[in-house]
Amino acid sequence: MAVYTDVAAEDLAAFLADYDLGELLAYKGIAEGVENSNFLVHTSRDYFILTLYEKRVAAKDLPFFLGLMEHLHARGINCPQPVKNKKGEVLGMIAGRPAAMITFLDGMWIRRPSSRHCAALGEALAQLHLAGLDFAKKRPNALSVSGWRPLFESCCERANELKSDLKKFLAAELSHLEQAWPRALPEGVIHADLFPDNVFFLGNELSGLIDFYFACTDALAFDVAICLNAWCFESDHSYNVTKGRSLLHAYAQMRPLSRGECDALPLLARGAALRFLLTRLVDWFDVPTGALVRPKDPLEYYRKLRFHQGVKSMADYGIAGSEL
Amino acid sequence: MAVYTDVAAEDLAAFLADYDLGELLAYKGIAEGVENSNFLVHTSRDYFILTLYEKRVAAKDLPFFLGLMEHLHARGINCPQPVKNKKGEVLGMIAGRPAAMITFLDGMWIRRPSSRHCAALGEALAQLHLAGLDFAKKRPNALSVSGWRPLFESCCERANELKSDLKKFLAAELSHLEQAWPRALPEGVIHADLFPDNVFFLGNELSGLIDFYFACTDALAFDVAICLNAWCFESDHSYNVTKGRSLLHAYAQMRPLSRGECDALPLLARGAALRFLLTRLVDWFDVPTGALVRPKDPLEYYRKLRFHQGVKSMADYGIAGSEL
Repeated sequence: MAVYTDVAAEDLAAFLADYDLGELLAYKGIAEGVENSNFLVHTSRDYFILTLYEKRVAAKDLPFFLGLMEHLHARGINCPQPVKNKKGEVLGMIAGRPAAMITFLDGMWIRRPSSRHCAALGEALAQLHLAGLDFAKKRPNALSVSGWRPLFESCCERANELKSDLKKFLAAELSHLEQAWPRALPEGVIHADLFPDNVFFLGNELSGLIDFYFACTDALAFDVAICLNAWCFESDHSYNVTKGRSLLHAYAQMRPLSRGECDALPLLARGAALRFLLTRLVDWFDVPTGALVRPKDPLEYYRKLRFHQGVKSMADYGIAGSEL
Repeated sequence: MAVYTDVAAEDLAAFLADYDLGELLAYKGIAEGVENSNFLVHTSRDYFILTLYEKRVAAKDLPFFLGLMEHLHARGINCPQPVKNKKGEVLGMIAGRPAAMITFLDGMWIRRPSSRHCAALGEALAQLHLAGLDFAKKRPNALSVSGWRPLFESCCERANELKSDLKKFLAAELSHLEQAWPRALPEGVIHADLFPDNVFFLGNELSGLIDFYFACTDALAFDVAICLNAWCFESDHSYNVTKGRSLLHAYAQMRPLSRGECDALPLLARGAALRFLLTRLVDWFDVPTGALVRPKDPLEYYRKLRFHQGVKSMADYGIAGSEL
């Protein structure tokens, strides 16, 4: 929920003069996304999203993100598309920020996903992975295992403010994952943040995927692990095996998981939980003044991590390895 | 900037089933308004604003606000219109809040108004006042002189945290205004909050007025005084006589100000400044947890009030009484 940077009408009109999108008629800051500032823009041609990239998104990564959206869209993934300006460029500057005009995608995100939604998500995730296989650009995942220790170090001294002995717990988990992290799994483009608010539905049909600003090159199964965390737990943080089974089964129908991926999934799920636990902890202790962002509960991911620590095999996620 | 209440897609779809607006296609929380939660809603028929009335807006006042918008629109004022549902009603309930679907109004608000914008505002304000003269409903102004002492009492103990001796200053000003407040000026419907962000322009043309949730029955010239405060000061809080003259001249072309109104204007302007100074002080010390609202600087209105205290006549606002 964020509009970090205000945009004056005169500045937006000047920015739009470089595009072939008609006259500016209206724009509103929208309360979505936590990394960037987003505006819904009405021109005489259509509605668009204007995204201003704030400093948490590195400018050097923008060609990867915007190129990926174009690549995926060309392969049939319904995702927002950057709009080219008259010079054929997708990136401009407004209010001192790199900015892009993006097509407006209809659809609503589901606050309370059912196992049916989880199945749709699983299928779409596999389609995304397949469509990304021939994307040429690479971007390392800064929020995979090698990125966790710096995060841990920046928040560990205050971690126990949230829960006693949390620092010790995190240190042990981090050491274990650093040592045991699987390194030879099939890689490709992963979304890396495919939470329910980034997946649109129209009626019961999944209608689109948004927010590719964490996308990177990493183990595809790590994306599955992130989604298990994001989609298959109840509001009391208990794991729902029916949802997990739906997600994994639908994914594997489209892209079968290898034996190695299945064996690694419990560890990947721990890693995914630790990744969100750490970034939420950092955000919890470092809410920028005036950012108008409500930090998310880090301990939600502590509880999920504890669940994954107890998982012995895929069966605990609701599905037998042989079904994948 | 506010979305206080989230709305689930299922709940919004159920709400829209009572309307003849087609299928729900998308909705986004928008970062505008500080009293209510607002969503931009795309249906298969059009774009609309969904407003959820939060507790700062009294439910009993909603028929006044919504009826006023219909009344003004019928008299040619370009303002958002409440949409009737299939039962002919404009008010429903969603997520436990009274809620209305409102037409989407194109136009942008001007971050840096020029004297030309001030003239357009002055003319529109007078048109609004004339159009409201035959509106039957009444609503007392809870934020006029009789409402200021309770506000003062709720914030005076902490006022000096912002500025030394502010409490004493406020007490003296309040006593003076209570004693000297003009009581026999022409009354009617006033907008009471016609700041630049509530006035839309398309190009150089004023295209619409929004946000009638402070509208009430009061001295029309008090609305002029509010606009002088809101439109005619520079960012360093100095008064711009050119802008003031533009606003007042354009207003009077449409609705001449009486001698009594001209004489009262400096006092009304002090009152308007005190009203915003007090409400901003209250908000400053009482930001609701998690409201994601950045409180506005109260001292901006201290400085404006100091200016008005020095005003001797309309001439100090940039115009001779004889020109009105």
